[in-house]
Amino acid sequence: MAEHGSVRVQGIDPRTGRLVAESIQATTPEQLETLVQAAARALPAWSATPATHRAAALRRVAAVLDDGGDEVIRLAGLETGLDPARLAGELARTTGQLRLFAALIERGEHLDVVISESSAEIGRPDLRRMLQARGPVAVFAASNFPFAFSVVGGDTASALAAGCPVVVKAHEGHPATSAATAAFVTRALAEAGAPYGVFGIAFGAAAGGPLVAHPEVSAVGFTGSFRAGVTLQAIASGRDRPIPFYGELSSTNPAIVLPLAAAGRPREIAEAYVASLTLGAGQFCTKPGLLFAPHGSPLLEEARAAVAASTGGPALSHRIRDGYRSFTAWDGVPVIATGESGGAVLAMTPELRAVGLADFAANIDELAVERFGPAGLLITYNDVAELLATLPRLPGSLAGAVHADAAEAADAARVAEALRRRVGRLIMNGWPTGVAVCAAQHHGGPWPATTDARYTSVGAKAIERWLVPIVYQDWPDELLPEELRRDNHLGVPRHIEA
Amino acid sequence: MAEHGSVRVQGIDPRTGRLVAESIQATTPEQLETLVQAAARALPAWSATPATHRAAALRRVAAVLDDGGDEVIRLAGLETGLDPARLAGELARTTGQLRLFAALIERGEHLDVVISESSAEIGRPDLRRMLQARGPVAVFAASNFPFAFSVVGGDTASALAAGCPVVVKAHEGHPATSAATAAFVTRALAEAGAPYGVFGIAFGAAAGGPLVAHPEVSAVGFTGSFRAGVTLQAIASGRDRPIPFYGELSSTNPAIVLPLAAAGRPREIAEAYVASLTLGAGQFCTKPGLLFAPHGSPLLEEARAAVAASTGGPALSHRIRDGYRSFTAWDGVPVIATGESGGAVLAMTPELRAVGLADFAANIDELAVERFGPAGLLITYNDVAELLATLPRLPGSLAGAVHADAAEAADAARVAEALRRRVGRLIMNGWPTGVAVCAAQHHGGPWPATTDARYTSVGAKAIERWLVPIVYQDWPDELLPEELRRDNHLGVPRHIEA
Repeated sequence: MAEHGSVRVQGIDPRTGRLVAESIQATTPEQLETLVQAAARALPAWSATPATHRAAALRRVAAVLDDGGDEVIRLAGLETGLDPARLAGELARTTGQLRLFAALIERGEHLDVVISESSAEIGRPDLRRMLQARGPVAVFAASNFPFAFSVVGGDTASALAAGCPVVVKAHEGHPATSAATAAFVTRALAEAGAPYGVFGIAFGAAAGGPLVAHPEVSAVGFTGSFRAGVTLQAIASGRDRPIPFYGELSSTNPAIVLPLAAAGRPREIAEAYVASLTLGAGQFCTKPGLLFAPHGSPLLEEARAAVAASTGGPALSHRIRDGYRSFTAWDGVPVIATGESGGAVLAMTPELRAVGLADFAANIDELAVERFGPAGLLITYNDVAELLATLPRLPGSLAGAVHADAAEAADAARVAEALRRRVGRLIMNGWPTGVAVCAAQHHGGPWPATTDARYTSVGAKAIERWLVPIVYQDWPDELLPEELRRDNHLGVPRHIEA
Repeated sequence: MAEHGSVRVQGIDPRTGRLVAESIQATTPEQLETLVQAAARALPAWSATPATHRAAALRRVAAVLDDGGDEVIRLAGLETGLDPARLAGELARTTGQLRLFAALIERGEHLDVVISESSAEIGRPDLRRMLQARGPVAVFAASNFPFAFSVVGGDTASALAAGCPVVVKAHEGHPATSAATAAFVTRALAEAGAPYGVFGIAFGAAAGGPLVAHPEVSAVGFTGSFRAGVTLQAIASGRDRPIPFYGELSSTNPAIVLPLAAAGRPREIAEAYVASLTLGAGQFCTKPGLLFAPHGSPLLEEARAAVAASTGGPALSHRIRDGYRSFTAWDGVPVIATGESGGAVLAMTPELRAVGLADFAANIDELAVERFGPAGLLITYNDVAELLATLPRLPGSLAGAVHADAAEAADAARVAEALRRRVGRLIMNGWPTGVAVCAAQHHGGPWPATTDARYTSVGAKAIERWLVPIVYQDWPDELLPEELRRDNHLGVPRHIEA
């Protein structure tokens, strides 16, 4: 962990406390300026690079990462304590994302081309609209996904695909992994003929604010803590020219178990709940932080037993472990079960607390908050009507889940309506962890889940964050961007208004 | 004009200075609270109203406005000094917008439905994504379009179409017009069975800040002055839960005349330029504020003659006239032509100033600013390379225009590239005033043209501002919103990933 302003960033093994690899020098202000200026200079060439070539470059990055997988998985295992199988899966997800965006831009779907043909009758000129790269992008890597939300995770992949150069602010939790990944990315992009400066990486917390404030930076992707996110967002919106700040900050992800489901399959639900709660030692933004269950149902005892039988794991960093330990918002709520620590130096122990719905509702601002780590709050309700009145008061979340039997479908629909503007994803009889990378995915939600509920950071639509429209009016065909020409020789999907 | 905090809002005739109609009482804080709470209560019903019914309500509003056109055109003529033909055209544009959004939501295009079908092979759940109404919307009406950007202009029409209740903050420049329009809208919506509270209107500048700050307001549409826009945007982003602020603030709309065009058709270009510059007494956000022309070309004399032969018109308000008069940023640049005032009490007289490109470039922050009214800045350049180096330094604009002959196409393409990230719309051999309402339109641009270059306030895409995604994971068909069910009996356009 690096302190603010320190000159080197050092990874440690959270299981043993041992240093990992050489420390990395923090990026100086002068070096940061060089990185951002290089990104700005790369913009015209990279954004004008044909989509097929940009796609080839993304696939080259994926291939080089696949080849170098052993090295980055080894480093990430040391710096995060995550097991190799999980890391291998995450790396495959990461290279899969690069290939997804490569295919997307080859098809031209992301351009959202709309053409309104000229009409003398209604006095309309010829208008041809497409999306284009908005400019250099700053990406803040996350602690909890050293590949998929880090150096060349979804933010970087989608921004590069959009035609935007990227400067990554590496996370302090895995500097050696970040440096090794960045070396692969830089090499692959150069091999693919991408312009110099299209990708850069900065180290050290002190680089974050200046990166967001830099006049050449046109947008920011951030996954991290509420406090850091709010600070950076204030910088982004306080600039002379404010820029979009896409931040994923904090999410409680309510899961509601309806009475028949709780009565009919209490063990199955409880075990799946605790598996989701303790996955990755609870260090997922989609962890089900709030579980609503019927008062007096057998689910309560099963949940208690499942937590007691669970084992924690290492925090990804001292900061996360300290935050987990020093969390006080739930102090007034009794602990009803505790698991095993797992024995890591930075261990976080699973814990379940329980509170009645009336008490919860009376203290919702204090209790409905994210606790990063394997801790859950169980809220017991007496009747569904009371529950329905409380759910719309929850803070925004990335996801919410409903567990219901077929015979209580009407109540499930009411719960969904109550949550509809509080979450970005609504799950039936499942758990919020596990976010499929696909066309329909939406990984975003109302504040404070994300700073901008309109956008997703996972799935094909993530590319929308880095694009802005431009329309050409009465422009001669030969001077139009190829994507807008009348013959459409690139075969870009178009919506045409005749 | 109402002063901040005054209790009544009074329209005046800018041609004569006479009061128009009865003054309108400014909305009190208690009344504003009632309006916003009613909007919040209307949200569930209005957003769940089938699109066909919402479309019918929008068409009913259009029909009632068409019927009541004489009254609102008469009032608007008195309060704005705009001529009846212009106002009739603008009202037709306004009812046309309502019908455009009605047709759009009937087709379901705005929902952007994407379905990723479940796949056991890759372990993917069934994901069904659509856009939904984000919540109550605040709309700040503009001075310069008493219908099309006012009470039931594009912002209100698109928000209502999206399923969002609307509270309008009427512009102080045309209170009687606003009240009369609002009465028609309220009646039409009630007749169409829309829920109470789906539309409300507030009067008086003092209502603006509290409206943006209100916790139930989920987004803001604003067209107005830079100063008011920046103030309100700061409120929107400083809230406990920040909300999107879609503001159209200030735009200089550069028009570049290349050498052969300037030499070949100087009079045609100059006359069209001055017509665009003085349209509506220069009170268009798309007015061509900066004209770049070759040093020594015959265009300069033609432009001077055309301005000298032009006539101004009344400002829409005292504030606009005072702003036009007291504008000092161009004081160091000589006036080369002045038109006739037109004789109104609040007259603004056309004026053209000229400066060399080197001087302009050296003082670009002071000179490249909007002056609202019929004034233009002519910038003379010696060579195109020098021009190309300066254009990327311009502030963001809604539109830019290039005038070129076929033989200088290569330079036209270079100018377009230089302007590509500085404007939202690029026009060939035309002028930025006149913004067609259609599918491909983009009326937005980099700061300070708009606060959010991703969005348009004109055309079909304007509805995107009021929508947020939600995705349903593994949801049973009978509990899904109708738009997402497997049989697609509503016939909504869908993108399906198998």
